Amino acid sequence: MPDFHALPIQPQAIQFDSERLTLTPEGPTLTRRMSDLAGLFLDEAARSAAAANENPVVYTVTSSPVPEADRELPQSITTIMPGNTSGELWMTKGHQHPNHQGEIYLALSGTGGLLMFDGEQTSWIEMRPGTIGYIPPGWAHRSVNTGDEPYAFLAVYPGGAGHDYGWVLEHGMGKRAFRGPDGATLLRPYAEQPGT
Amino acid sequence: MPDFHALPIQPQAIQFDSERLTLTPEGPTLTRRMSDLAGLFLDEAARSAAAANENPVVYTVTSSPVPEADRELPQSITTIMPGNTSGELWMTKGHQHPNHQGEIYLALSGTGGLLMFDGEQTSWIEMRPGTIGYIPPGWAHRSVNTGDEPYAFLAVYPGGAGHDYGWVLEHGMGKRAFRGPDGATLLRPYAEQPGT
Repeated sequence: MPDFHALPIQPQAIQFDSERLTLTPEGPTLTRRMSDLAGLFLDEAARSAAAANENPVVYTVTSSPVPEADRELPQSITTIMPGNTSGELWMTKGHQHPNHQGEIYLALSGTGGLLMFDGEQTSWIEMRPGTIGYIPPGWAHRSVNTGDEPYAFLAVYPGGAGHDYGWVLEHGMGKRAFRGPDGATLLRPYAEQPGT
Repeated sequence: MPDFHALPIQPQAIQFDSERLTLTPEGPTLTRRMSDLAGLFLDEAARSAAAANENPVVYTVTSSPVPEADRELPQSITTIMPGNTSGELWMTKGHQHPNHQGEIYLALSGTGGLLMFDGEQTSWIEMRPGTIGYIPPGWAHRSVNTGDEPYAFLAVYPGGAGHDYGWVLEHGMGKRAFRGPDGATLLRPYAEQPGT
């Protein structure tokens, strides 16, 4: 009956375990190590040295079987490890949707921040379990772990929105999130050196 | 920067309480009583009599402030009361998305079923807390309370998908869900009279 714009996906049940942080059946997963984050931290020399040594896992993304195809609505769980590189809190690469469409993040465990940037304005939402962060169309978005344990969230996003990681390398994210001396999170202008 | 297709919505934090079944701040809410469900139960005479008498609330829908606008991704919580009309389990009206796009339902409390129909095939997913039911583009969908307590779920859906309720009146949903003598759920062909 429908005029499908993508291969038809069948209805399906996906078991979401918000404590074990799983979607079952599971789709693609990815692991981002420090070596995958070139050019994203303010202190690129420190990032590069960490990548050349222990090359720690910074975050993982596990997806449901719903594909990233136009008109579908896939889901994923991202888990960001606690840590910082020269004080800058560990974070996702961040991306813009080339096909501007909204997205939601639902915080599941740990504490984090949702940084958004539309090229002019910056927005920062503190994420605690139960917080839905709404990312409107046209806002690049990055997640940050602001605590001492893994920070995990469920994402629901239109499958045809796409991921433009180059946008962030070109435009930045407006602000960066650092760990202050008292453990509080400090937001600083994107290119500002600490101590200035 | 972006070329918005709808009035720009600002980034926002929405508090989702899966036990109190609230989204805060709250957007539009609606209440569907038996009088709103004309023509949907097999026993229309029994429905009409119930509407004329106590006219019970069959379900409520509370929404987040994200609008139903193209490219946005709103959310809502639906709560269906337990009950049946001549054995047919209480349910939502059901609808088709005129702009075919996928949707997810996440079961929060109680027990239910997600009935889907693409005009030819029927799909039924048993919904328990933690189950995500995936509704692919082109499948009309209706939720049913199969238990003895309220059944609630979170929906996340593209704001431009739309709601075509007339499609269900015209095409039906393929099957209907009844309460069997032992409390189990029986699915029967849409137009089949009980006892035949």
